[in-house]
Amino acid sequence: MKVTGLEKGGLYRHFASKEQLAAEAFDFAWQSAFEERTRGIESTPNSVDKLKQFIANFVDRRPLMPGGCPIFNTAIEADDGNRLLRDRARRALSQLVTLLTGITETGIRRKEVLANTDAASLALLIISSLEGALTISRLERDRRALTSTRTYMQEHLESHVRLRSLSRTANG
Amino acid sequence: MKVTGLEKGGLYRHFASKEQLAAEAFDFAWQSAFEERTRGIESTPNSVDKLKQFIANFVDRRPLMPGGCPIFNTAIEADDGNRLLRDRARRALSQLVTLLTGITETGIRRKEVLANTDAASLALLIISSLEGALTISRLERDRRALTSTRTYMQEHLESHVRLRSLSRTANG
Repeated sequence: MKVTGLEKGGLYRHFASKEQLAAEAFDFAWQSAFEERTRGIESTPNSVDKLKQFIANFVDRRPLMPGGCPIFNTAIEADDGNRLLRDRARRALSQLVTLLTGITETGIRRKEVLANTDAASLALLIISSLEGALTISRLERDRRALTSTRTYMQEHLESHVRLRSLSRTANG
Repeated sequence: MKVTGLEKGGLYRHFASKEQLAAEAFDFAWQSAFEERTRGIESTPNSVDKLKQFIANFVDRRPLMPGGCPIFNTAIEADDGNRLLRDRARRALSQLVTLLTGITETGIRRKEVLANTDAASLALLIISSLEGALTISRLERDRRALTSTRTYMQEHLESHVRLRSLSRTANG
């Protein structure tokens, strides 16, 4: 209401329903979160480094307050209610899973990622652990959960996901 | 209200405020969640196996619906509101962190866990990743996020946390 300068009634008249309004608000919040999380990924050449960039964006770029993640807030708040909103959150999550899965699959084709990597599971693991850590960090008003998760996931990508070419290993 | 058989007004009169009522409801939900998550841990001798038991309880014992985690629900829903409730959720989280940190520290003393393990970070990592996966699984109505996280965390415990005695390694 502050943004539009409209009264509450006026704001509702612009949308079919309160649910519709909540869904539009979600889209707006999500677009900005998605841009923030994917910044610099396209210009990063290596697939594993793209995943690491995503993790760094999630942990380092964000102010701890306010807001949290639109997907998580919606997942929990609309869990047994607003279906329109829940569908928006599912679609947003799926956009994220598709992005990360695609990066890993491209990495396998380019021999930057170990061939036996389960791209979809890795995507879910990265998203789950970061989102969980964000919620814990917000509850504790302390970044430790986020920084521990970043460290663990970066190490995991180096030790279990990155395919090192023989020549690179030989050169150190 | 169903449980107590009281009318809404009657229920509120039993508690100092709506906030107090929400806090009591949280305590009740948390006690049951805590019991479920810690089942079998005390009777498991090895520290790493205790952590694995905690993960297994979290992923396997729980029905996917309904409810989710009281800490997470509260962390998100009381983020900018009910302070009494937020404090309850923080205390519950801290109970969990203390439990897992203690298991790891005992494991270090008993030479079951690698001496350089950061017990508090490991506790936060386990909790964050499981809680995140639970929320994702509930949003997707699909257990994949939970089972991927279980697999990765169990592997992490075996490869980066468990201290294998020389004799055990020699005997296979």
